[in-house]
Amino acid sequence: MTPIIFDTDPGVDDTAALLFAHAHPAIEIAAITTVFGNADIETVTRNAAHIAGRFGIGAPVARGAGVALRRESGPPPAHVHGDNGLGNVALPATPLAPIDPRPAHRLIIDLVRERPGEIEIVAVGRMTNLALALAEAPEIVDLVAGITIMGGAFGVDGPNGNVTPVAEANIIGDPHAADIVFTAPWRVRMIGLDVTRRTIITPEGFARLRAEGGAAGAFIADVSEHYMGFHARFGVTGCYVHDSSAIAAVIAPELFTFREGPVRVVAEGIAEGQTIQRDPAVFYPPGAWDGMPSQQVAVEVKADAVVALMLDTLCAAA
Amino acid sequence: MTPIIFDTDPGVDDTAALLFAHAHPAIEIAAITTVFGNADIETVTRNAAHIAGRFGIGAPVARGAGVALRRESGPPPAHVHGDNGLGNVALPATPLAPIDPRPAHRLIIDLVRERPGEIEIVAVGRMTNLALALAEAPEIVDLVAGITIMGGAFGVDGPNGNVTPVAEANIIGDPHAADIVFTAPWRVRMIGLDVTRRTIITPEGFARLRAEGGAAGAFIADVSEHYMGFHARFGVTGCYVHDSSAIAAVIAPELFTFREGPVRVVAEGIAEGQTIQRDPAVFYPPGAWDGMPSQQVAVEVKADAVVALMLDTLCAAA
Repeated sequence: MTPIIFDTDPGVDDTAALLFAHAHPAIEIAAITTVFGNADIETVTRNAAHIAGRFGIGAPVARGAGVALRRESGPPPAHVHGDNGLGNVALPATPLAPIDPRPAHRLIIDLVRERPGEIEIVAVGRMTNLALALAEAPEIVDLVAGITIMGGAFGVDGPNGNVTPVAEANIIGDPHAADIVFTAPWRVRMIGLDVTRRTIITPEGFARLRAEGGAAGAFIADVSEHYMGFHARFGVTGCYVHDSSAIAAVIAPELFTFREGPVRVVAEGIAEGQTIQRDPAVFYPPGAWDGMPSQQVAVEVKADAVVALMLDTLCAAA
Repeated sequence: MTPIIFDTDPGVDDTAALLFAHAHPAIEIAAITTVFGNADIETVTRNAAHIAGRFGIGAPVARGAGVALRRESGPPPAHVHGDNGLGNVALPATPLAPIDPRPAHRLIIDLVRERPGEIEIVAVGRMTNLALALAEAPEIVDLVAGITIMGGAFGVDGPNGNVTPVAEANIIGDPHAADIVFTAPWRVRMIGLDVTRRTIITPEGFARLRAEGGAAGAFIADVSEHYMGFHARFGVTGCYVHDSSAIAAVIAPELFTFREGPVRVVAEGIAEGQTIQRDPAVFYPPGAWDGMPSQQVAVEVKADAVVALMLDTLCAAA
């Protein structure tokens, strides 16, 4: 049983990932912490509390950062996640889970201290809360089991950002925070667009969730309709499995191939938000990667197995 | 017959490219202009005048920029090109070609104006002279046939810089100049590390140049010894064909596959010197590539044919 703190900005695929994690017997959701991103911080926190209350996820929910460390943010991507962050699906007035009085980064620090060596932080939004936690309690680097993030675009098959040719949304949303998280001496596993874009839930997959996945499966299918329409606009039939790939990497890391090497984030300029991993085997003159800890970047994925793991888990728990 | 201005920092592979161009019946060398890079500006200008005088290249030689537009430069890469820029081969006291009194960028402007629509500028070093020419005479964008450059690392198969994980030497040496050249509305073809590193002259190729390539072939083989030693340090037997690939692209563009799209250069920060081409088919929010002219980036090469073209040309002319 791996206890995770799920740091999230629900968000359509965040919702799927949270319910996937909740459904899997090997995962204990120790806390849900929110961060602005797919919608503003009020909206994503309401969504997290809604999902936790509606589906009986008995974990504290804490509200996190509403702005990036240093970067001015634009409006949230309503064309991707809908105006309410959940594909514009009307939410019934089910009881919301209570909101923990602590800010997200403080709850992270407290839980990591209470359970040293146990907790995997799964961060699928901007990394602002993690950077704030590191600033306030640097010793947590030695107290977590590790960090798994959905984010980044490492150009494995060429430039592949989704906000610019080289930048992915979670990273460009707070590049300074991401650089702090990736260069801290804890183990970070990065599940980026290089692999999540190869992993697709088809309309048939959503139909199966609706038929066999119970209330959680039907909710995932409902909120994903608008998201599927966004994907159709660039020729993808179905939805990329972004955030749920991070959950899959916690449950079954053997479905991914990871490449080792230090990672830095471009903080400013036209490449802002780009994640760059240095290949430790190549000679370069002294540079920005020197002395930074080696981290793990997913470069290959058994995509069908990831999708099957997610669908089977949700259907088995229904 | 294509008249070229060869803008260069000889430099071992610059020397090979210059003699290759001189040997090919379809190329007229209209001028040789120098720029700091593989060695300081005095050294590369002396080397250019030496090669022009020794091998009877009847073209004006003009001294160009000794520093980048805005960036402070480090010491030249003596470990690559030797202390004298020519692999530490002692140069006999042959008469040097005279040096044109004009600075390189002024000679470029004058020649392009004299022969409107005819001249291909082949730039295989920092792009400082071209940026200076553009600043002084913006109308040359309509008067050149086009620009072919050796430079850049476009990450076609993943991050592939040679100075940093994402930056190539000619571009990081003057990123501001490169960005000016690539965003000007003239046709730029870029032959970068994505293709030049797949194109290798083997020791057998150098042996053939020495046996059948006359004085020019022997000189290329001599100056390349030190350069081959540099390649051996990262496991390559032979030498990458960097600058001569740009000459090959002028003679036989059909040996390359070019990808269309605007190109920007990262001017500062840890990705300084990175060349990023935007895929025009992908949707992105408004960004730095909008409204910029489409340029041509080499993404594939018939490598064996490029090497054969170079060796056959030099041997046929001997």
